[in-house]
Amino acid sequence: MTGWKHPSPEGWSELAWAALDEDIGPGDLSAACLNPESTVEWVIECQASGVLCGCGIANYLLQPETDDPDDCHTEVQMEDGEPVHKGDVVIRGRSLATRLLTRERTALNYLMLLSGVATLTSKFVEKLNGLEAQITDTRKTIPGMRALQKYAVRCGGGKNHRMGLFDAVMVKDNHIRAAGSIVEAVARVRHNTGHMTRIEVECENLEQVREAVRAGADVVMLDNMDPFTMAEAAKEFRDKVILEASGGIDLDTVRGAAASGVHVVSVGALTHSAPALPFHLEVL
Amino acid sequence: MTGWKHPSPEGWSELAWAALDEDIGPGDLSAACLNPESTVEWVIECQASGVLCGCGIANYLLQPETDDPDDCHTEVQMEDGEPVHKGDVVIRGRSLATRLLTRERTALNYLMLLSGVATLTSKFVEKLNGLEAQITDTRKTIPGMRALQKYAVRCGGGKNHRMGLFDAVMVKDNHIRAAGSIVEAVARVRHNTGHMTRIEVECENLEQVREAVRAGADVVMLDNMDPFTMAEAAKEFRDKVILEASGGIDLDTVRGAAASGVHVVSVGALTHSAPALPFHLEVL
Amino acid sequence: MTGWKHPSPEGWSELAWAALDEDIGPGDLSAACLNPESTVEWVIECQASGVLCGCGIANYLLQPETDDPDDCHTEVQMEDGEPVHKGDVVIRGRSLATRLLTRERTALNYLMLLSGVATLTSKFVEKLNGLEAQITDTRKTIPGMRALQKYAVRCGGGKNHRMGLFDAVMVKDNHIRAAGSIVEAVARVRHNTGHMTRIEVECENLEQVREAVRAGADVVMLDNMDPFTMAEAAKEFRDKVILEASGGIDLDTVRGAAASGVHVVSVGALTHSAPALPFHLEVL
Amino acid sequence: MTGWKHPSPEGWSELAWAALDEDIGPGDLSAACLNPESTVEWVIECQASGVLCGCGIANYLLQPETDDPDDCHTEVQMEDGEPVHKGDVVIRGRSLATRLLTRERTALNYLMLLSGVATLTSKFVEKLNGLEAQITDTRKTIPGMRALQKYAVRCGGGKNHRMGLFDAVMVKDNHIRAAGSIVEAVARVRHNTGHMTRIEVECENLEQVREAVRAGADVVMLDNMDPFTMAEAAKEFRDKVILEASGGIDLDTVRGAAASGVHVVSVGALTHSAPALPFHLEVL
Amino acid sequence: MTGWKHPSPEGWSELAWAALDEDIGPGDLSAACLNPESTVEWVIECQASGVLCGCGIANYLLQPETDDPDDCHTEVQMEDGEPVHKGDVVIRGRSLATRLLTRERTALNYLMLLSGVATLTSKFVEKLNGLEAQITDTRKTIPGMRALQKYAVRCGGGKNHRMGLFDAVMVKDNHIRAAGSIVEAVARVRHNTGHMTRIEVECENLEQVREAVRAGADVVMLDNMDPFTMAEAAKEFRDKVILEASGGIDLDTVRGAAASGVHVVSVGALTHSAPALPFHLEVL
Amino acid sequence: MTGWKHPSPEGWSELAWAALDEDIGPGDLSAACLNPESTVEWVIECQASGVLCGCGIANYLLQPETDDPDDCHTEVQMEDGEPVHKGDVVIRGRSLATRLLTRERTALNYLMLLSGVATLTSKFVEKLNGLEAQITDTRKTIPGMRALQKYAVRCGGGKNHRMGLFDAVMVKDNHIRAAGSIVEAVARVRHNTGHMTRIEVECENLEQVREAVRAGADVVMLDNMDPFTMAEAAKEFRDKVILEASGGIDLDTVRGAAASGVHVVSVGALTHSAPALPFHLEVL
Repeated sequence: MTGWKHPSPEGWSELAWAALDEDIGPGDLSAACLNPESTVEWVIECQASGVLCGCGIANYLLQPETDDPDDCHTEVQMEDGEPVHKGDVVIRGRSLATRLLTRERTALNYLMLLSGVATLTSKFVEKLNGLEAQITDTRKTIPGMRALQKYAVRCGGGKNHRMGLFDAVMVKDNHIRAAGSIVEAVARVRHNTGHMTRIEVECENLEQVREAVRAGADVVMLDNMDPFTMAEAAKEFRDKVILEASGGIDLDTVRGAAASGVHVVSVGALTHSAPALPFHLEVL
Repeated sequence: MTGWKHPSPEGWSELAWAALDEDIGPGDLSAACLNPESTVEWVIECQASGVLCGCGIANYLLQPETDDPDDCHTEVQMEDGEPVHKGDVVIRGRSLATRLLTRERTALNYLMLLSGVATLTSKFVEKLNGLEAQITDTRKTIPGMRALQKYAVRCGGGKNHRMGLFDAVMVKDNHIRAAGSIVEAVARVRHNTGHMTRIEVECENLEQVREAVRAGADVVMLDNMDPFTMAEAAKEFRDKVILEASGGIDLDTVRGAAASGVHVVSVGALTHSAPALPFHLEVL
Repeated sequence: MTGWKHPSPEGWSELAWAALDEDIGPGDLSAACLNPESTVEWVIECQASGVLCGCGIANYLLQPETDDPDDCHTEVQMEDGEPVHKGDVVIRGRSLATRLLTRERTALNYLMLLSGVATLTSKFVEKLNGLEAQITDTRKTIPGMRALQKYAVRCGGGKNHRMGLFDAVMVKDNHIRAAGSIVEAVARVRHNTGHMTRIEVECENLEQVREAVRAGADVVMLDNMDPFTMAEAAKEFRDKVILEASGGIDLDTVRGAAASGVHVVSVGALTHSAPALPFHLEVL
Repeated sequence: MTGWKHPSPEGWSELAWAALDEDIGPGDLSAACLNPESTVEWVIECQASGVLCGCGIANYLLQPETDDPDDCHTEVQMEDGEPVHKGDVVIRGRSLATRLLTRERTALNYLMLLSGVATLTSKFVEKLNGLEAQITDTRKTIPGMRALQKYAVRCGGGKNHRMGLFDAVMVKDNHIRAAGSIVEAVARVRHNTGHMTRIEVECENLEQVREAVRAGADVVMLDNMDPFTMAEAAKEFRDKVILEASGGIDLDTVRGAAASGVHVVSVGALTHSAPALPFHLEVL
Repeated sequence: MTGWKHPSPEGWSELAWAALDEDIGPGDLSAACLNPESTVEWVIECQASGVLCGCGIANYLLQPETDDPDDCHTEVQMEDGEPVHKGDVVIRGRSLATRLLTRERTALNYLMLLSGVATLTSKFVEKLNGLEAQITDTRKTIPGMRALQKYAVRCGGGKNHRMGLFDAVMVKDNHIRAAGSIVEAVARVRHNTGHMTRIEVECENLEQVREAVRAGADVVMLDNMDPFTMAEAAKEFRDKVILEASGGIDLDTVRGAAASGVHVVSVGALTHSAPALPFHLEVL
Repeated sequence: MTGWKHPSPEGWSELAWAALDEDIGPGDLSAACLNPESTVEWVIECQASGVLCGCGIANYLLQPETDDPDDCHTEVQMEDGEPVHKGDVVIRGRSLATRLLTRERTALNYLMLLSGVATLTSKFVEKLNGLEAQITDTRKTIPGMRALQKYAVRCGGGKNHRMGLFDAVMVKDNHIRAAGSIVEAVARVRHNTGHMTRIEVECENLEQVREAVRAGADVVMLDNMDPFTMAEAAKEFRDKVILEASGGIDLDTVRGAAASGVHVVSVGALTHSAPALPFHLEVL
């Protein structure tokens, strides 16, 4: 994707075409009952309340090809990241009936998935209203969908954790065991990575937190700790390192975790268990 | 996929490598704290109750490469489609620590997603206990994941609706409007497709159902009808065509819909809103 | 392909670029004797009688790129599916000489191959003049060319059998042997596929035909049967199932097979042995 | 392809997997009636006389995968380029029934296509028995199949003309017109290509042949000339350049063309109009 | 590439997008500080003297996309192959700031690499001023960059040796040893290739040169011979075959090698050790 | 790449096959003079002194395929990162002559390129002997080769700067101008990126350095500053941020830059202008 805020088609167009191909395969059999030249006017409407995400892809899939009749066009009516309600029109246009009905499902599938992620994220973010802590995602994403899901998290008001194994270091329990100690593990990683890389250490108790800070970690994850332990960690280390609460946090527990004084709360459910936000396409 | 029951790697290996690549990118920075030759023993455990799906892919991603030490191996302990409970070990093995920790997340992401779909499907199927009607999926799938999600539906006890636009016909309201009538729409499609293709017509009321049957439809969808209307349709046409109930059906309403006498109930949520089933990988 | 009747570039453009690449490789050496800016006027002429197919691809390959001079253009003069004769101009245009001569051969190769298939199909279809039976293709296609060859069959007046292993079921002798009986084989398949899938059973004698009908087959293939046996099968089962004659049928035997009363006659030669229909490109 | 004589899988394996994918798509529905563990013994038999080509690909597609049972194997019984007759077994093996029946059609489609090309080539080569002239192919090939079809031509005893636009120069009438004269066209090409490139000039009469020889062409094509004119050209220039007869030459006219004294006769039909040689797979 | 002189985007656009993707990955993080709608005016300036190459690719990467504001444009100011000096503006334009800063580095990396090759080539060519011999490249290229580097060699005034293993034959010492003799090796190759293929033989001494000429080689490589031996070879065989000097030739020795009377001097360093020519992009 | 230290084939195998394909194209014509069954023993020798890099890829390309004779094998004799001298054997093996000669050039091209980068890096690293500062690379890499070239930099003793636009932030002069000030630019980026991302600011004078530190930059680049200014910056800010010297630094100036007290010196020439280290393959 060219930009970070509004990812442009270079980053996802290949995926979008593959998704179309998955649906169309060797041809849309039902198109045989349509006049190949007739055009129709249409809208995509939201069917529930949430946060919008995926207009760019949906519009990309439905916009006219160069050979289409001159009156074909599409217009995005709302922006990714905006709150959306039942009945809101998010995209409208006029298209060849054959192209529209062939591509409709894939466009809607993207909208529903990404708006689902943005909507769930926004619910977590709202729970932290008035607190400084931020909601962040994880690497528990749908295979092949990570960059788009992480974009949806940003649309919902969340922040992104590392994108993958390549853009930051997370020293986990297994790494620590293999290296012998947190100090040794961090030292090895520091020796092998450059000056632009942040290092996080996953800690299960305060002792480990102390060792991680001493080892020079940039970020410390408080893994599955209770709010009281987290509060203790925050009191001691909040000004020295970035603290991240993690581990099975849901809408009921997120405010408690955040109130402990950590900087960041990471939530896997944002990208692995967000229900779809429903949309449908209406021919006028 | 070579087979239908147990899809073999030809069908999804490219996706699986792309998913790994999405996570690893230009390299796993954290691997720097591991000894590149050391091997570790591990298990993947389920963390909740549900129906298992995705062992083949997870195992494919974790199994040893040809150059790995001789003691490396993986063993699938349970089969896709089996009920699974908290603490069940589904795959176990010994692997190079570097390879294991680099690929763990992607393997788990597949297991969690697909077992989530199978689990939700099985809940719908259980609701129909004692009835003849079958649960089927839709085309409301995650872009790029359709064949795997439809496999997960089968693992959960459901049936597959058409795979895409290419393997069966669905005449929808917009097709009907464009063709002028159901009879005309079906005639056009019949004229343009071969003798191996089934045709379904989406109907909103009994009058349309009657016309669809008269037009020679093989399958009639009762779209968003109340159970009483569906029961009427079933009484009249159940022996002449296949009847499918569809439209916003959830775990609360599915038994009522099925009890109306339709042959099939299709549920979009199976593939667009199934929460993940949690698994984790434990190094012993 | 977006549409079924006129497949659009999404379905074959990648193949077309790969075919160009196969011919051009690291560069057209002969282009060195052309002025890179000069444009020429040209026509593609048919050199024999037949049925036209492939204009869309040929035109796609020859049409101007965005940077070409303003007077460059192409015009398709005839439609796929039309009868064509020696001397007929099917596409005309003005192009950069370098681009035209570099792409000419690939465009013509598609036209020749696909029009060859459409032409042979039309000859089979003509033989059935006045009969109800339809000509259909098989899976004996050129690797990589199936969807396009099946489109050519439609242009020649034929129907398409299943597109591949994924859109319908064919229970063959080996499947029957493996399952124990036709009844068992059909039952297993019915259990594993959804309500949108048709099932055909390949039968070698009337006894098998009877069993297939009893088993609930939708379509029965009469494999390599003589016309008299086929007529018997047709008399008994024509109203209960769809009957397909198959097995080494050529232009001499096709009318006899069709006259037996079957609904469909399938012919492998349409797609594996159709001679090319010649075309050439003339610079004016 | 690693080697020239026996092209190895690097050169065509991607095409072969794409061809399989075209047939299998999202899954072989018919496999549902097979036991996924049972293995069967099989042979591929030729069903007519000709020259064999394509064993390597067919065997590649059918050979066991690493996870198959230990008794699975395949054996190629005859070599590409050998004469083959009805009933000859060309490959035999034991395979998982599911894999075999899923891949059978694609393997046979390659064998039938390539053996068809080799067989037709051998018929042209036989016609030249006792003469020095050689049969060569053209660029009139099936899109995407050029390297394999040209290999089949070699198996049938023919030689390959240039592989594409990139490995040799052909100055055609349009190039000549654009450059002003044969001398100028050859000079421009010579100036722009290196010392490893041969240049052929397409000539329509003896005057052009003379100019081409004077211009320093390495090869001269006698395009659509009658045998007497070709004989004259051969008498005068046979020792100075390589002479190629070309243009609509068939099995009836090829010996006359060759007897004129040219070095090479090129035949488009080898690769655009060769009927398939039939093969079938028999489960024992 | 469509043309030979000015390779068009078909030949390298996939590489160029892959290079962009390598740099951008899941998104340009730094773009977050730019206004996504603001446009800027810019120039690309050369920072040293040399020969220009790569304007086409650089411009292709920076030119506006269809959705960009109307005032966006790019203009190539100089042509590939032209001499260039510090301060020369080679491309200028107005672009979205986000797109420009995201793509700048990749565009410059191509310009720097290809102009580096063209510049080094031109230095070798200048050394041969007044001699007939030509500078040619080798297969010692950067993996994945061969066609573009060979284009850069042509821009620098050099000629191209064979593009790869497929467009001409080189019989090397190992081939000779395997075949038993030069005569036998050449005979085998001649038997297996068509009439459009040139054959070169690598020779280490005059005896081998004699045998190669006798065997009918089209080109003889004088491998690592001293200038005196090369002069002897040239005197005897210059009119019978094409002679190529090769082996560790640098800017100091190239004139001596060429003066020996050979037709061609091949230099590996052109494509494996050319230092980059520096360029930078300036926002005005 | 699976690991960071020794990148495994997943990361580069596709590139390696594409590079082979670029060389082999539709077939190695010269292989026709080899016996397709004969095997030969061989070594790859270094021909100059330097630091080794690329053994893994070279070995991957030359190692036996599964169908090769049993005596075929390869052995890597030295490790990437080791110093290497003229005559050192780095890989040895026995291979099919056809496969070896077809793949030799591509394997050597990788070895020469990557060892060239490692060698030049090691020369810069040696210049800093006794100083704390580290040598790091830039994004001025060969398109398509970044991950491998950055691996070569690590082999030569250098560190990696960010891999691309996606794994860290660099605020450049144009970003600053667009945002209005360094403080504003850093604030915007901080707002849009997560807690795992480091931010570097490119500064041209001490004033800017001060502002960058105040803005909360993690790293400050001293762009094209003279050593005295850099020393001043280091004295004041060395303990607060990471300081990077950059801009046209060569082997003559690198020690001066490093001695100023910066933490890191970045050098573009490592990856855009490193001459190849020569290797050759010898059949014994």
